[in-house]
Amino acid sequence: MATQSEKSSLESTQLKDIISHAKEYGFVFPSSEIYDGLQAVYDYGQNGVELKNNIKNVWWKCMTQLNQNVVGIDAAIFMHPDTWKASGHVDSFNDPMIDNKDSKKRYRADVLIEDRAAQYEKEGQPEKAKELVQQMARLLEAEDLSGVQQLIIAEKITCPVSGTANWTEVRQFNLMFSTQTGSVADESTTIYLRPETAQGIFVNFLNVQKTGRMKIPFGIAQIGKAFRNEIVARQFTFRMREFEQMEMQFFIRPGTEMEWYEYWKAVRIKWHQALGTPAEKLRFHDHEKLAHYANAAVDVEYEFPFGFKEVEGIHSRTDFDLSQHQALSKKKQQYFDNDLNAEGKPYGNYVPYVIETSAGADRLFLMTLCNAYTEEEVTEGDSVKTRTFLKLHPVLAPVKAAIFPLVRKDGLPEKALQIFDDLKFDFNIIYEERDAIGKRYTRQDLIGTPFCIAVDYETLENDTVTVRDRNSREQKRMPISELKNYIGEAVSLKRIFEKL
Amino acid sequence: MATQSEKSSLESTQLKDIISHAKEYGFVFPSSEIYDGLQAVYDYGQNGVELKNNIKNVWWKCMTQLNQNVVGIDAAIFMHPDTWKASGHVDSFNDPMIDNKDSKKRYRADVLIEDRAAQYEKEGQPEKAKELVQQMARLLEAEDLSGVQQLIIAEKITCPVSGTANWTEVRQFNLMFSTQTGSVADESTTIYLRPETAQGIFVNFLNVQKTGRMKIPFGIAQIGKAFRNEIVARQFTFRMREFEQMEMQFFIRPGTEMEWYEYWKAVRIKWHQALGTPAEKLRFHDHEKLAHYANAAVDVEYEFPFGFKEVEGIHSRTDFDLSQHQALSKKKQQYFDNDLNAEGKPYGNYVPYVIETSAGADRLFLMTLCNAYTEEEVTEGDSVKTRTFLKLHPVLAPVKAAIFPLVRKDGLPEKALQIFDDLKFDFNIIYEERDAIGKRYTRQDLIGTPFCIAVDYETLENDTVTVRDRNSREQKRMPISELKNYIGEAVSLKRIFEKL
Repeated sequence: MATQSEKSSLESTQLKDIISHAKEYGFVFPSSEIYDGLQAVYDYGQNGVELKNNIKNVWWKCMTQLNQNVVGIDAAIFMHPDTWKASGHVDSFNDPMIDNKDSKKRYRADVLIEDRAAQYEKEGQPEKAKELVQQMARLLEAEDLSGVQQLIIAEKITCPVSGTANWTEVRQFNLMFSTQTGSVADESTTIYLRPETAQGIFVNFLNVQKTGRMKIPFGIAQIGKAFRNEIVARQFTFRMREFEQMEMQFFIRPGTEMEWYEYWKAVRIKWHQALGTPAEKLRFHDHEKLAHYANAAVDVEYEFPFGFKEVEGIHSRTDFDLSQHQALSKKKQQYFDNDLNAEGKPYGNYVPYVIETSAGADRLFLMTLCNAYTEEEVTEGDSVKTRTFLKLHPVLAPVKAAIFPLVRKDGLPEKALQIFDDLKFDFNIIYEERDAIGKRYTRQDLIGTPFCIAVDYETLENDTVTVRDRNSREQKRMPISELKNYIGEAVSLKRIFEKL
Repeated sequence: MATQSEKSSLESTQLKDIISHAKEYGFVFPSSEIYDGLQAVYDYGQNGVELKNNIKNVWWKCMTQLNQNVVGIDAAIFMHPDTWKASGHVDSFNDPMIDNKDSKKRYRADVLIEDRAAQYEKEGQPEKAKELVQQMARLLEAEDLSGVQQLIIAEKITCPVSGTANWTEVRQFNLMFSTQTGSVADESTTIYLRPETAQGIFVNFLNVQKTGRMKIPFGIAQIGKAFRNEIVARQFTFRMREFEQMEMQFFIRPGTEMEWYEYWKAVRIKWHQALGTPAEKLRFHDHEKLAHYANAAVDVEYEFPFGFKEVEGIHSRTDFDLSQHQALSKKKQQYFDNDLNAEGKPYGNYVPYVIETSAGADRLFLMTLCNAYTEEEVTEGDSVKTRTFLKLHPVLAPVKAAIFPLVRKDGLPEKALQIFDDLKFDFNIIYEERDAIGKRYTRQDLIGTPFCIAVDYETLENDTVTVRDRNSREQKRMPISELKNYIGEAVSLKRIFEKL
């Protein structure tokens, strides 16, 4: 885990550039900005919402439409509170917290210790750093919170605000947001905002399997909001209190999990590459410590300006979740496997094992933006300028094409609007006639529009237009009648699929 | 407002049929059903999520892609709490509640009185009913809660559970869900789950206007979840505690509001009709009492099995919201109107007026399902059977086409899979080879698939297939090469647009 101090100033600058670009060109605004914002919450602007929706739509179609044995659902954010008892979230979805009595500031105890370890590292004492982190891990493992407090005191860690070591004891702080619901005075119920979407799939496993006549192996995919009361929420849309997950649970025969784990690892990393993220910016990172529900787990990490960080996890969750729900609800969560019987194998009923792919939509959004943000030097006459553009995959770009009449007279706007009216049903496109054409190209570069279509005097003669490519800035002439196919090909699902 | 007693048993039966169809065919499941559900919360199953996503996508595209001056955003559910002070929700988003001391059950005081009025009506005393409702309205208007309690006692209204009139006083109960967020011990903040998406648009008005270079009149559209702690939540997905809104705020010059109000009224009702809802099942219902922020308001109502009910509202909200935010945030929410200056009019800066179109995605889902659910008598040989199918507009149908090999041999499955693999990138389609073909047709009827494509021996000879129409059950032969255009035409946005 990277600490604040690890970030080089160069990296911070790059993230800062991306944040201000995102704000200035309508991708991301701080939430409720007129009230000075709400920490770690962001709103997607007019271009951001299109980019994010495109990421979600491509994921959804690749998962469900292109896989005959994967279907989707959309479970509610509110769930019966027993769900979170079964999943373990009520008891153990905690962070160890400590307060400084002088500043009244609250910190994650483990982060304070990790920051101290990073300091040892910097001072050329890597052995000492490693030992400290291991000691902390042992204490947390043993749930020895008073031991963690003593470690903080022994290490003479002080509060960055007050400068004192006047600490409270360490307590566990549950990350779930809770609220009250209910229609009768004496039966008001505490419910939680789901901290993950996965459980919405597990509790619906049999509903989907039976009503959809699904045969194992099969998957259920879902996109939806989840909420965590993160104490240290930072790095823009990377870690937010309200965030969106794109998860798929793939139900399989026990014993086949390693085979499917490898299958989905391979498919998922290729998917990120097919959408334009270079292989060298992606890596797998095996979990050093497995969660209680997993027997294998890996992160797909992307190299953000602040280092390699998780954008998706692939987890072999065994039958942990379904078995927990079965035990608590007293409702069998089993699958009757006809094929096993037919193969003469000893049993037909079992609780399926699960391989999960879990991606963060907001993290993929940030990854896409970081990856697309490009500054290049271009020569214009005598001067060298910096051109900024977003090198977005056409299928992800908020606007697919912009239609420009070269000038606002002589029937060019009318001709351009005809083209616009013909293409608008198939693609999200825009028409613009204000300002010089160079300025209009620049505006489209800044939001990542792959194609700019210019209508000039030649268009009136022979029904051809120029199409400017965002990346190369090259223009080619093309008959108007070919535009639909040309753009359609660039944004087609088939093109992505061929790279999977 | 319809009361429980108004519902005829026929109407209840129809809704019951639709609810069980929705469950049995993977459209809607009760939330957390294995834990006996969570009241007034539902999950969308594998077919329901596709239907709901299609409704949302068509709305989104019709609003943003087909209107050059409307863009989208996606604001977070969490907002700064001052937002809800400015909007008036903290102070007055209340229902008057009363508890029975014996049963401990809580009721909406106004609903108890309305139910009594309905009883008078039934007993042939419409005058008395009318007078009672008017008296209650006057008391609520004057915020005279003790008067409302006295009215309940005077009318000898008793608790349906305990049978007694042993009532508490009437109190206001805020419908917003609240939760705690915060990273520091002394600064934990109460925040709300947004009770409407509209405010996410208002607080971002200037961000979008400036970064998107929008000129008035222009609109901002948004789809997202909202939450209300409804005391009386019922009628399936019609009134849920967690629900999804599709809202558009259209910013205009003061004084032009009636013109734009009429414009959006006309566009919106035609949209519902273009998607297959017959005109006679829709009506406008003017608000009798305008909300504090509105100077004109109308509901689009659909005739559900339980009566005409609101599915969308069109509201002239004046400059209420932006002015409130301006006053509380001390940040100017004004638009500089170049065109006004150019026209030589006296002022250039103003707080825009707003026309809002606000549709409930879950209500439109239920409307679509009710409207599509069809039972017809069909003759099969000597016997008459009832055929149930969903007459969904192709653009809304979860599955656009199903591909069937007539039999599972002689190369027919391979040929059918070739067609599937060619069409799957463009449409959500399925391939099925199990069971007799009649059974397969029936299964697609039940989920509303508009086209079933059968591959038979003739296909191997001349590359044609039969395409069965869901509504007429008629089959026609068609070259495989025409399928993409045929389905594409049926689901095209252009076809809907031509009816607007």
